[in-house]
Parts: sequence; structure tokens; C-alpha cells
Amino acid sequence: MATVPLLNDEAASDEARAVFDAIRAARGGDYVNNFWRALAHDPALLRATWERLQDVMAPGALDPMVKELIYIAVSTVNGCSYCVHSHTAAARARGMSAAQHGELMAVIALAMQTNALATALQVETDDRFQA
Amino acid sequence: MATVPLLNDEAASDEARAVFDAIRAARGGDYVNNFWRALAHDPALLRATWERLQDVMAPGALDPMVKELIYIAVSTVNGCSYCVHSHTAAARARGMSAAQHGELMAVIALAMQTNALATALQVETDDRFQA
Amino acid sequence: MATVPLLNDEAASDEARAVFDAIRAARGGDYVNNFWRALAHDPALLRATWERLQDVMAPGALDPMVKELIYIAVSTVNGCSYCVHSHTAAARARGMSAAQHGELMAVIALAMQTNALATALQVETDDRFQA
Amino acid sequence: MATVPLLNDEAASDEARAVFDAIRAARGGDYVNNFWRALAHDPALLRATWERLQDVMAPGALDPMVKELIYIAVSTVNGCSYCVHSHTAAARARGMSAAQHGELMAVIALAMQTNALATALQVETDDRFQA
Amino acid sequence: MATVPLLNDEAASDEARAVFDAIRAARGGDYVNNFWRALAHDPALLRATWERLQDVMAPGALDPMVKELIYIAVSTVNGCSYCVHSHTAAARARGMSAAQHGELMAVIALAMQTNALATALQVETDDRFQA
Amino acid sequence: MATVPLLNDEAASDEARAVFDAIRAARGGDYVNNFWRALAHDPALLRATWERLQDVMAPGALDPMVKELIYIAVSTVNGCSYCVHSHTAAARARGMSAAQHGELMAVIALAMQTNALATALQVETDDRFQA
Repeated sequence: MATVPLLNDEAASDEARAVFDAIRAARGGDYVNNFWRALAHDPALLRATWERLQDVMAPGALDPMVKELIYIAVSTVNGCSYCVHSHTAAARARGMSAAQHGELMAVIALAMQTNALATALQVETDDRFQA
Repeated sequence: MATVPLLNDEAASDEARAVFDAIRAARGGDYVNNFWRALAHDPALLRATWERLQDVMAPGALDPMVKELIYIAVSTVNGCSYCVHSHTAAARARGMSAAQHGELMAVIALAMQTNALATALQVETDDRFQA
Repeated sequence: MATVPLLNDEAASDEARAVFDAIRAARGGDYVNNFWRALAHDPALLRATWERLQDVMAPGALDPMVKELIYIAVSTVNGCSYCVHSHTAAARARGMSAAQHGELMAVIALAMQTNALATALQVETDDRFQA
Repeated sequence: MATVPLLNDEAASDEARAVFDAIRAARGGDYVNNFWRALAHDPALLRATWERLQDVMAPGALDPMVKELIYIAVSTVNGCSYCVHSHTAAARARGMSAAQHGELMAVIALAMQTNALATALQVETDDRFQA
Repeated sequence: MATVPLLNDEAASDEARAVFDAIRAARGGDYVNNFWRALAHDPALLRATWERLQDVMAPGALDPMVKELIYIAVSTVNGCSYCVHSHTAAARARGMSAAQHGELMAVIALAMQTNALATALQVETDDRFQA
Repeated sequence: MATVPLLNDEAASDEARAVFDAIRAARGGDYVNNFWRALAHDPALLRATWERLQDVMAPGALDPMVKELIYIAVSTVNGCSYCVHSHTAAARARGMSAAQHGELMAVIALAMQTNALATALQVETDDRFQA
């Protein structure tokens, strides 16, 4: 149902297949998920996206699991079904517990609610919140 | 510029002022920010929102600072200026460093990007991402 | 701060000014609000938008005040500051009470919350909700 | 296809099942829809969401059917498929006619259109729309 | 799975069928796609939407293919699966190449990213960008 | 009003200032706009964003002006005021005429409208639109 066919290894260009191989090496498994197979029609975009993902999601000042929680939050507000599924799986793979998932849901739901109230009431920002 | 006047303590009903006092007690300070003063036109909504915030943002399986990061992510995607300002301030008050803020920005930006790609390509969810 | 200058009556084309006059006639007043003055750079778009507004917002199976409540709800989720302001004013002009405004806020906030939960959990639609 | 399994009555905790029973009692029927079964992994969130729904959607200054129209509007802008389906069904159950549904569609579509125009042109709010 | 049944030619009113026939005449084929069959429950909305589409998407200062690219961009951000599918097909029918599709994806993804950064950092608009 | 102070050349790190200089060289002028000065708190994010912008917005299969139109469309739906202003200015600098701006407005507004209708009616994608 994608707007482009998913490319398997044979159909992908050499440049795209090289990214598939980088994905396999980074993840220690053979499976390449549909997102990358759809992006493979544009190998430069595929490579740029994969490399950015590696940089941004690596351990740093924030824990990789926390980064996945943030990813789920963004994907939820954007209504991206694919992304909600794949990053919920990724968060679990990085140790998200059921209790943490529940609290994530509660925070997202609360933020949605107060976002709408602040917008519907057009509340002006307090001076003390300015940087 | 709000769509309702902000209510100061004199203008607020007894029920709303009781919530203002609960906010002061919880935060250990006298200041009540504009959001609550706008909500005070509907004391029941004010109370329900404040009590929910207290429950959801308390320490639990997730750290309160992490909850604020999630809040910023949701508020950003919703484009809620007030909420971005107030929760960035709250995250700093709970210890968010400049490096953590930078990584939060990078994760949000990356998620926006892959959300749009997955949606524009209408990529179907892999079976392995199903619960 | 608009991305186009607002056109006053002198600057507007004859075609745009004719729409300004239609707005004045329909509203029984001289004031033409900024939205129409910004649209006046494209008189065909100005006319099409004004005429559609007249058709859609007229009394019908739904009360004009209820239509304004729906308009506020959409404008809130889209984060359109101008629209939230103008349609909150319009709803009040059509009789929206403070209590109705409060309930509107509560319903919008609740819907935001359950929307996010259904999306984050990717809940499948029950058969009984299919038309 | 949810990101969590839907919990049937056996799998649900006592606390969650008590909410299922409250849903049955309120609706006068045995069916508990998928949304609540997905939320049941976090009984506190399940309970808080159900109780808030009961409070907010009850008859008040706005008619329950009107509240459902507002709910559909919010759900549409958020692109929540589950919510559009379930609240369209709820609106019909509360008496929404085909003509009212058609007008709801027209108002939502119009608001989307003028929201985008006001945002793309960055029209400044008229003084007279300030509270 | 729609919230209304799709109306075939027999089920549609005379007024709706006249629009179906206008669609067939404009497109030189017999097929009427689901969107119009869902809208046919409200013949006035069906007609207004079809006529607006004809006006707006006609060749003008912008090429019809470019208009389809813009349509895909909007539909992606709104997360409208139906619209992404139908307008990607329409863009291809108007000559969009694979390379153009790839660049469209890259621009949308980039814009999402910088939109979020500007919003999360609440960057104030430079004077020189004011009209 | 940003959530971070804008960094001038003195306050920026060497790494950030190098990007400022790259921006000046690419644009042939001294001015560095606020977006980059806000991003400068995280020089790596600043560099990655600037380099990506250079790659993606360069002439290719799509004209740079067309890319700016797409950028405006995305920014509008996201409600990013800064981005709407800056990319409207950029589109004009690349030759966007008033007539083209007007048609862009009309296409965005139309897409918003049909996006909402397809979502509110939950229209299923026709087989012929599948890739």
C-alpha cells in the first residue's frame, strides 16, 4: 500500500544495498525494515537519513531509551502509524518497561490537553519563561 | 491578547483561588502563571487540569525531567508557543543541561523528518513491529 | 507582520473592493477585518473564500453558534491564532456563554487526550464503528 | 495491530475490570470497545480517562450531541482514525442527522481552509478580537 | 471502513450523479474514485468541492504538476493517507519523475525538521522577513 | 522571546562562527538570520542543519523556487510562523510572483479542505492509487 514499491536487495541499486548492509552491520541481524526499502528509490536520501539516525540516536547526554520515548511522542502527535509502531518496538528493545510506557502515554495525553487549552485561550507567555 | 481576561486573585472565584493557593503551596512561591489565570474562568476545569498535572508529572517510572522533555516534544509538534516556553523553563528547573536540550532538539527534528517520509511514502508496518 | 501588506480600500482593486462592500453589507458595519485585507491581493481567492463562508456558516441543520464552536475547535488544533481569536469573538456575538466556552474547552482538551492515546496505542477500530 | 495487546476480561487486572464494568453499567450493554481494552494495561490511566470522559461529555451548557460534533472536529484535524470512527458513531447514537453530518463536514473543511490562509499570510489579529 | 457508505451511481441522487458525470467528462474515463462517492451524501458539498478543485488545479501561474507536489506536501503533514495516495498518483500522471519525487521527499523532510527547530527554540522573526 | 538567547559572533563558539561564515559566503552578504543564531548553542546541530539545507535546496530535478513553495506549504500546515516568513521571503528572492503566491495559497487551502473531508469520512484508498 506504499506509494512506491519496497525494494528488495536485488532491485536496489549498489548504493542503496550498501546502506542496507550498513543497517545490518549496525543492528547485528539480517532484517532490513520497510522504511529503508521504501527510501531506497533515492539512495542519497536513504544514506543521509540512515547516517543522521545513527548520529542522533547514539548515547550522549540523553539515554537512547529516553530518545526513543521522545521519538514516540513526536510520532504520536504527527499521527505516523509506522513510526509509532517501529519506535515503540525500539523503546522496548532498549528496556522501556510497561510502567514507563504507561507514564509516557499519560504525559503525552496531558500535554495534548494543556497545549489545546493554552492555544484555545491564547494565553500570553509570562515574562519569566523568556530565555 | 488572550481570548479571555486573565483573572487575578480578586477577580477569581473562591473555588479558583483555592486552586491558585494549591499551586503556590506545591511550588513554594507566590507566582501563579498566566495559564492558570486564564483557566480560572472555569474553576472545575482549572481544578481538574491542575490535579491531573500533579499526578502525571510526579516522579514515577520516569524521571520528572524526562517527563518535561516529552512535554516539550509534544508542545513543539503542536506548535504551542506558551507550552514550549513554560516547559522548557520547567525542564531547566529540573536540571536539563544545554547538551541535553541540544539532543532533544536533534531527536525532535529527526523524528519530524522520518515521520514525514514514512507518511509520504505510506510505508506499511512490518509484521515484527506489531504487538 | 503579515507576509503580504494589508490592503486598504484605496489600494485594493475594484474586484476586491466589491467583496469588501459585500462584507460590510452582510455584517451591517464598516469594519473589514485583516484577514480579508490580506486576501485582497488575489481577488478571486478573496471572493471564493467569502462566498464559501457565507454559504457554510448560514443557519441550516446546525445552529450558527454551534458552527462557530466547531470552527474554534478546528482552529485550536491547527494552532491558528488569528482564527481562534476571530471565531471566539464570532461565537460570543452569536450568543456563546462563558459556561458554553468552558465546556468547549473541556471537550477539546479531552478529545486531544484520547486522540493521542488511540494513536500512540494504535488501537484498531471496532467492527461496530464501521458505517 | 495495536502497540499493546487488547486485554479481555480475564487478562485485565481487577482494577481494570472494575472500569470495564463501570463502562457496561453506564452504557447499558456488555460490549467494551477496543480503546478501553488497550488502555487497561495502565489501570490508573484507564480509570482517569473514563472518569474524565463521563464528566466532560455529560449534558451541561452544551448538548451531548454538539459535544460529539466538536469531538469529531478535533479528531479529524488530529487524523485519529479510531476517534473519527467511534465519535461519528456516538454522534449518530445521540441523534446526528445526515444533514447535520454534512454541515459538520462543510464547517470543518472551511475552517481548515481559512486556518491555512491566515497562517500562510501571517495575518495579525485585529484589536477588536482581543478579549 | 468509511464513516459513510460509498454511493454507487444507483444510490446517488440525481444531483450527485450529475457531478459524477462531470468528473467522468473532465477526466475522459468512467471511473469515479471513492472520495467523491463518499461526499455524494451531501450533493451540495460534492459539487462545491469538485468545482473548487477544477478551478484551483487548472494550469495558471503554476504548473499543474507543481500544484500536485504542493498538494502532496500538505497531505503529508496532515497525515491524510487517502490524499497522499491519490495525489501521488495524480502527480505521476502529470509527469512527476522518480527524481522529482525524491527531491519532494527531501524538501518535505527538511522543512519538517527546521519547522520543529524554529518552534522548539521559539525563534523570533527577523525584521527583514516582514512584508 | 526565544527559549535560548540568540548568539552573536562574539558569543558563538569557533565551530558555530565557522558555520556563520559559510552562510555569509553562500549568500553573499553579512547578515545571519535568527534561526542560525538560535541553533548556534549546539554547533553540531547547526552545522548538520545548514549542510542539509544546502544539499536539499540546491537546483536539481526541481527548481529552487518550487522547492521554496513546497517549504511554505509544509511550514503553513505546521503553523511555523518563523518558517512561513523566512521561506516566503526566500521564494520571492527566487522569483515567486504575486500570482504564483496567490495560486500557492489556493492550492494549500484546497488541500487542507479535502484532507479533512477524506479523514472525517475515512475514505478507503482506491486500488488504482496503490503503487
